[in-house]
Amino acid sequence: MKHLMNPLDFSVEELDKLFALARDIESNMPKYAHACEGKKLATCFYEPSTRTRLSFEAAMLNLGGSVLGFSDAASSSASKGESVADTIRIISCYADICAMRHPKEGAPMVAASVSGIPVINAGDGGHQHPTQTLTDLMTISTLKGRLNQLTIGLCGDLKFGRTVHSLINALVRYDNVRFIFISPDELRVPDYITEMLKEKNIPYEEVTQLEEIMPSLDILYMTRVQKERFFNEEDYVRLKDFYVLDKAKLSLAPSDMLVLHPLPRVNEISVDVDDDPRAVYFKQAQYGVYVRMALILTLLGISVND
Amino acid sequence: MKHLMNPLDFSVEELDKLFALARDIESNMPKYAHACEGKKLATCFYEPSTRTRLSFEAAMLNLGGSVLGFSDAASSSASKGESVADTIRIISCYADICAMRHPKEGAPMVAASVSGIPVINAGDGGHQHPTQTLTDLMTISTLKGRLNQLTIGLCGDLKFGRTVHSLINALVRYDNVRFIFISPDELRVPDYITEMLKEKNIPYEEVTQLEEIMPSLDILYMTRVQKERFFNEEDYVRLKDFYVLDKAKLSLAPSDMLVLHPLPRVNEISVDVDDDPRAVYFKQAQYGVYVRMALILTLLGISVND
Amino acid sequence: MKHLMNPLDFSVEELDKLFALARDIESNMPKYAHACEGKKLATCFYEPSTRTRLSFEAAMLNLGGSVLGFSDAASSSASKGESVADTIRIISCYADICAMRHPKEGAPMVAASVSGIPVINAGDGGHQHPTQTLTDLMTISTLKGRLNQLTIGLCGDLKFGRTVHSLINALVRYDNVRFIFISPDELRVPDYITEMLKEKNIPYEEVTQLEEIMPSLDILYMTRVQKERFFNEEDYVRLKDFYVLDKAKLSLAPSDMLVLHPLPRVNEISVDVDDDPRAVYFKQAQYGVYVRMALILTLLGISVND
Repeated sequence: MKHLMNPLDFSVEELDKLFALARDIESNMPKYAHACEGKKLATCFYEPSTRTRLSFEAAMLNLGGSVLGFSDAASSSASKGESVADTIRIISCYADICAMRHPKEGAPMVAASVSGIPVINAGDGGHQHPTQTLTDLMTISTLKGRLNQLTIGLCGDLKFGRTVHSLINALVRYDNVRFIFISPDELRVPDYITEMLKEKNIPYEEVTQLEEIMPSLDILYMTRVQKERFFNEEDYVRLKDFYVLDKAKLSLAPSDMLVLHPLPRVNEISVDVDDDPRAVYFKQAQYGVYVRMALILTLLGISVND
Repeated sequence: MKHLMNPLDFSVEELDKLFALARDIESNMPKYAHACEGKKLATCFYEPSTRTRLSFEAAMLNLGGSVLGFSDAASSSASKGESVADTIRIISCYADICAMRHPKEGAPMVAASVSGIPVINAGDGGHQHPTQTLTDLMTISTLKGRLNQLTIGLCGDLKFGRTVHSLINALVRYDNVRFIFISPDELRVPDYITEMLKEKNIPYEEVTQLEEIMPSLDILYMTRVQKERFFNEEDYVRLKDFYVLDKAKLSLAPSDMLVLHPLPRVNEISVDVDDDPRAVYFKQAQYGVYVRMALILTLLGISVND
Repeated sequence: MKHLMNPLDFSVEELDKLFALARDIESNMPKYAHACEGKKLATCFYEPSTRTRLSFEAAMLNLGGSVLGFSDAASSSASKGESVADTIRIISCYADICAMRHPKEGAPMVAASVSGIPVINAGDGGHQHPTQTLTDLMTISTLKGRLNQLTIGLCGDLKFGRTVHSLINALVRYDNVRFIFISPDELRVPDYITEMLKEKNIPYEEVTQLEEIMPSLDILYMTRVQKERFFNEEDYVRLKDFYVLDKAKLSLAPSDMLVLHPLPRVNEISVDVDDDPRAVYFKQAQYGVYVRMALILTLLGISVND
C-alpha cells in the first residue's frame, strides 16, 4: 500500500505519470465521473484548513466517491485522548482512503505506519504539505510545458514558508533549474537549503528587491510576509511594499512569466493584477483539484480506460 | 449567469415559473432525483444557520447532486484573512453553485460580482434572506392558491425582523394586498416601509393587539419578540403575552386562515396550536426544500423533461 | 414507525435477524451498495462524538444513501432556543432517518415522540447508547458463534460506564450467561444491577484483580478507568495498573477468549496486545458499521433480495 507523506515520495517518472493523468482528467472529466463510485474519502483535519479540505472533497466527489470526516480537533476523538494510531485504525473501518491534516509534525507518518488504507499527508505542522507541492509542480508543468530549464523567483517569507522549502526540494530534481530568492534579510531561505543547492551545483541568487530581477524570471512564486515575523515595526514598514506585487512591478516581467501563490493571499498581490494572464494563482487552485483526483486514483490503484 | 441576492431579483412572472416548478417537484420527486448528478453545491456559511444550511443540502441531495462546504467562519479561510472575493473564486474551482451566509451585509453581492458560479444569498446580516421569502411566498401561493387578494397580518418584532421586511417588499407586487401590522410600539414596522406603502396606495393598519384583527386575516405571519428589544422589563412583561399565539386566540381566526413562521419558534406560538390544520409552519419548512430545489435547477439552467 | 431508543427495544428474535442481516452485509457488500439510493440520513449530534457519527455516516454511504447534519450544538438551532421537538419536525422535512446524540437523557425519546421519520438514539447523556450495545452483541455473536453459554468479564469503571450497564441488560436475556465484574471498590457495578441479577438467578462474581479470573473468561470487556473517578490520588496510583491489559496478563487467558473495548482506548489496553488475535476491538469498530447498516435498512423497512 502506498501513502503520500512527502512530495519526494514520488520519483520524477511517477510525477510525470501523475501530472499526465491529472491533465487527462482536466480534458475528460466525464470519463472519470464514476471512477470512485462506492469509495469513501475520510478527511481527518485536526486543525481547520478549509481550502485544502474542500479541494480533497471536490476531488473525491468529482470521481463519484463520497466523503466523511471532521474539520477540526474539537470535534474529533483526539479530545478524548485517543492516539492518532488508534484513530486511523478505526477510520480504516469507515473509509477507503484518508487525507490527514495535523498540527504536529510526523503525525500522518505515524498514522500511515498502522493504517489499513492509504494516507495522504494534507499538511503536518511546519513540516510538509505535499499536495500543495504537487499542485505547484502540476501548474508549472502544464502552463510552461516543462519543469526543467527554468528560472524561478521565490518571494516573501522564505525562512518559515513550508511550501517554499518543499517546492525547492522538488524542483532540484529537474535539469537546469535556477533559483532567485527575494526576501528581507530577516526572512532569508535557511542555510540548509543554500548548502544543499551548492552541493548539487544548482545556481541561486539572494536579493532583497523584487523589481531588479523581474525581467529574468520564468516563474514568480509569491508568499505572504507576516508582520509578526519582523524584529521591529520600522523594518516592517520599510520593507513591506517591496514584496507586494502590483501592476507596476508586473510590467517589468516577461510576457510569459507565471505568477503563482499557494493562497490565501492577504495583500502581497494587489487585486489589480488578478486579470493579468500571467496571474495563474486561481488556475493553480483548479489544478489542485485535478492533481488530487489523480492522486486518489493512483493511491487506490484505480485506472480508467478510454 | 444569474445569482439570487434579493427576492426582487426575480420578476413576478419568474416567481410564478419557479413556484410552478417547485410544485411539480413536490408531486414528482423521482423525476428530479438525478437532475443534478455530478453537480456540487458549496455551502459557505460564515455564521451558523443549521436550518437554512440543511435545507439547501437536502435540496441538492434530492436532486442527485452532492455537497461540500463549511458551517461557520472559524473553519473557513476567513480566519486567515482571505477576502470573500478570493474565497468565492476558489470555491468556483470546487463547486457548481454556492449558497453563502454571511454576518456582513452585502458580502454575497461582493462574491457574486467575481464568482465563476451562481451565488445564492443565504442571509447577509440584517439585510436579506431571499430564500426565506421565496419559501414564504411559495407556501402562501400553494396553500391559498393565490398571492393577490390577501389580508396579511404580520405579528411580533416588525422593526428588526429581516424576513418581515423582505416579505412585505415581495408582496406589494401583487394586486389587492392589505397589511395589518401587529406589534408593540417599540417594535413597529420602520417608516420607510409605511411610506412606501402609502406611495403605492397599498392599505395597511397598525395595531397593538392580536385578538381584535384575527377574524379579518387570510394569513398570520408570526415572528419572535425578543426580550432584549424592549426598553424596559416592565413593558416586556406587560406586552409579551399579547404576541403569543395560543389555542384561545386562534379560535378567533377564520377557518381557512394560515399561520406561518420563519422558525425557529421559541415560545411565540404555543405548541398546542401545532396540530391545528391552519398551523402550516412545518409544511413551510418542507416547501423551503422544494423551492430551493427549483432555485438550484433554475440558476444552473437545468430543465427536466417528462 | 419504529425507532431505536434502548437496546431492549428489539426482542432476542429481532436481534437475531438484525445480526444475520449484518453478517450478510459483511459477506455481500456489493448487494447492498444501492439499497438506500435517494435516502438521506440526518446526523443530529448535539455533542461531538466523531467515532459514532462517522460510523453512522459510513453505514449510510455504504448503502448508497447520503448524509447531512451537524456535529455539535454550537452549529445547531439549539443555540437559538429551538426545542428538540421542533428540530426533529424540521429534520423530518430534510431526511428519511435520523441518528441523534444529545447530552440530555431522554432527548431522543422526546424527538421520537413527534418525529415524522425513524429516530436512532446515538447516545443520550449517561443513559443509553444502543448502537454500541448492538455492536458489542454482534461482535460476540459473530466471533464466538453464540450469545449464550458465556462467561463475561467486565473490567474497569463499572459504576459510571454506560456501555457496561447496557451490555449487561442485553446479555441477561440469553441462557447460561455468567458475569465477572472486575473493578476497584470505588467503581463497582451499581446495586440495581446486582439486585436484578440475583432476582433473575444469573450468577456473577465481583473481584478486584484481573489476573486471577482471566483463565475462566470467554469474553473480556475492557473499559477506561478515569483518574478523576477515584477518591484520592493514592488509591489511583495503587490500583491503576491492575486494570491495564498487557501481554503478561493476556498470556493467562484462554486461547479463544475475546477482548472487546468500546473505544476510545487511552492506556487501559497496552498497544503490544493489538496484534494478538484475541484483541478484536478494531474488528468491533468494523462490525459497528455493519450493524448500523442493518439497523438503517430495518428501520426504513428496506429489504434487499438476492
